[in-house]
Amino acid sequence: MSALITLTTDFGETAPYIAAMKGAILSVYRGARLIDLTHQIRPQDIRHADFFLGSAVRYFPAGTIHLAIVDPGVGGQRLPLLIAVGGQFLIGPDNGLFTSAIRTLGGSPIVRQLTEPQFWREQVSHTFHGRDLFGPVAAHLASGVDPEEFGPRLRGWIELPIHSAICWQDRCEGEVCFIDDFGNILTNIPQVQIKELPVRVALNGGLQEHVRWVRTYADAGPGELVCLFSSEGFFEIAVVQGHAAARLQATVGMSVELQFG
Amino acid sequence: MSALITLTTDFGETAPYIAAMKGAILSVYRGARLIDLTHQIRPQDIRHADFFLGSAVRYFPAGTIHLAIVDPGVGGQRLPLLIAVGGQFLIGPDNGLFTSAIRTLGGSPIVRQLTEPQFWREQVSHTFHGRDLFGPVAAHLASGVDPEEFGPRLRGWIELPIHSAICWQDRCEGEVCFIDDFGNILTNIPQVQIKELPVRVALNGGLQEHVRWVRTYADAGPGELVCLFSSEGFFEIAVVQGHAAARLQATVGMSVELQFG
Amino acid sequence: MSALITLTTDFGETAPYIAAMKGAILSVYRGARLIDLTHQIRPQDIRHADFFLGSAVRYFPAGTIHLAIVDPGVGGQRLPLLIAVGGQFLIGPDNGLFTSAIRTLGGSPIVRQLTEPQFWREQVSHTFHGRDLFGPVAAHLASGVDPEEFGPRLRGWIELPIHSAICWQDRCEGEVCFIDDFGNILTNIPQVQIKELPVRVALNGGLQEHVRWVRTYADAGPGELVCLFSSEGFFEIAVVQGHAAARLQATVGMSVELQFG
Repeated sequence: MSALITLTTDFGETAPYIAAMKGAILSVYRGARLIDLTHQIRPQDIRHADFFLGSAVRYFPAGTIHLAIVDPGVGGQRLPLLIAVGGQFLIGPDNGLFTSAIRTLGGSPIVRQLTEPQFWREQVSHTFHGRDLFGPVAAHLASGVDPEEFGPRLRGWIELPIHSAICWQDRCEGEVCFIDDFGNILTNIPQVQIKELPVRVALNGGLQEHVRWVRTYADAGPGELVCLFSSEGFFEIAVVQGHAAARLQATVGMSVELQFG
Repeated sequence: MSALITLTTDFGETAPYIAAMKGAILSVYRGARLIDLTHQIRPQDIRHADFFLGSAVRYFPAGTIHLAIVDPGVGGQRLPLLIAVGGQFLIGPDNGLFTSAIRTLGGSPIVRQLTEPQFWREQVSHTFHGRDLFGPVAAHLASGVDPEEFGPRLRGWIELPIHSAICWQDRCEGEVCFIDDFGNILTNIPQVQIKELPVRVALNGGLQEHVRWVRTYADAGPGELVCLFSSEGFFEIAVVQGHAAARLQATVGMSVELQFG
Repeated sequence: MSALITLTTDFGETAPYIAAMKGAILSVYRGARLIDLTHQIRPQDIRHADFFLGSAVRYFPAGTIHLAIVDPGVGGQRLPLLIAVGGQFLIGPDNGLFTSAIRTLGGSPIVRQLTEPQFWREQVSHTFHGRDLFGPVAAHLASGVDPEEFGPRLRGWIELPIHSAICWQDRCEGEVCFIDDFGNILTNIPQVQIKELPVRVALNGGLQEHVRWVRTYADAGPGELVCLFSSEGFFEIAVVQGHAAARLQATVGMSVELQFG
């Protein structure tokens, strides 16, 4: 059965870029099965792409090809990559956007630099490698070309500095890593490091507020501020049927401090 | 040919939730054909989902599986459902979001409670049943598992109270049920109950305004306020090449009164 | 292998229109492979659709069917079309939205008026031909029906007036034709007519500003105003890691004047 190619970009929906990239893929390999993940990564926001991919790719089956184009350095020095890791493939620029995806897929990544222009469009523009280079490579890979043919192995590649939460006996310090469309505040504080003790939460060094633990949103009444473990296993703050981030004026990158007891 | 799975959610496009759900489906059954309907149902707005599905599902072919996740009660008491009706399948939470879909698909629904964890992900989170329970069930169904295997029949399920329009000899009372991206105001007043007599329209108990009947938007000039029957057969108010809802300050749920003659 | 049907509309994501149209297509031909291009063409903006399609369709493989519904004249006098050009097919209303697509696909188009109701839904509404007429025609075509069967050839069809840039020895006059989600300003001034001489740019008849030429965004520092040739080969103005259109208050249709030397 034909290989899956997922698409994650910051191209937005009004410009013809995603359309052109889909066409370029299908022109190389008409049988490719395209799965849109999102085209709404914030423009040029590599951290957003990294969080997104780190939370999503591990749910896909073996052999899936994830094409991710958030590429502020297009046409410059940054290298184009094909990464084989955990039975799946990642294709995109070497700017760190696969840092979390590689970790969650596990195993030792085999990282290749894309050097073989026979797998690219004949004309490669300076500003749109999704259409001219990465997309066609994904299509050739989906059609059965051996990963080794796309270019030589690289020993080093770019990783984003990962901001890990730090926990002590009675408190944790972390940060907001995402705010979803429901207004839920997702942090980088992992479930394994904290227990469901009474907790006070301070955002951005502000006043500490007691927040009630729940198992899920339906455990509290509408409008109530609650905390829980997210479906990915991290500390999350929510307002039931409301918008926690608006209520608490939270933004991505803001510090989160938890005080237990 | 492989079964179609349509996807309707309120997940939005910036969060990794829809990506993770697609991965979970394809990991169960790589051959599933995924059709995005929307991921822009207003957050937790069951009425929006109900209107959307009620206007869309009947156009799909027999055997289609509609997976719809707008689920404020996730992880709580609400039951997970698989509904067979009119030759198609509906999968999602028991919160009423399928009320109109069931009516438009016709026939007697066979409603089952999803009770069999062998069709779920091994770990089921408290907050993301789209990925952990509903998605995998849709995938197993698409792959050929018999509907009976997912759980026992239910005799009762939740239906939204449907606000039907009321019509007399010379007037109708209904409400706004949707405003589309063109600004067109869709109501719940059915074509069969009204004739194209001269009509005055009052929104939200305001002043009555004479509105001209047209067959379609192109029958009047730019900027003109018109009324017509929608493509689904309901009373609709539009501004030609303009935005009726902005002009009339209309919102969903607002009362609509028509006075004929 | 089954034919590809691409979808380009102004339906937006909250209304059930795109869902209903997909259902209508799949009900005619379950094997159709649907590829979303966008549903975010600005409402009823034929020029946006024309620019979008003109930049995208030529990247698709032979035999692709492009269904594009931006149709303010639905149900009125405008004709429904099937166009064969450059080995691909275009289906939509005769309002000019295919002007640039036809040019970029090249060759002589064979334009047919859709007259044969056996390929439409049984009931055709006055306001939704995407679902009731164009979608089903695309599905029948994808399933193998001969293009000749859908209706007779037309000798005339509507073309948008194309605003071409004009260039002299030392200057060019053109206009802004698109602003993408990155804020990049795309113009209609073609690369072939200008050289990378020092250039001053004036938008909307305003003050001329010196802008630095770059090959790609990464060639300048964050926040710098630069110009370059777009991936489609036109003059483009950008702010590195910023939003040029916001900085320069540019909008689509605004005049662009370049002064060289």
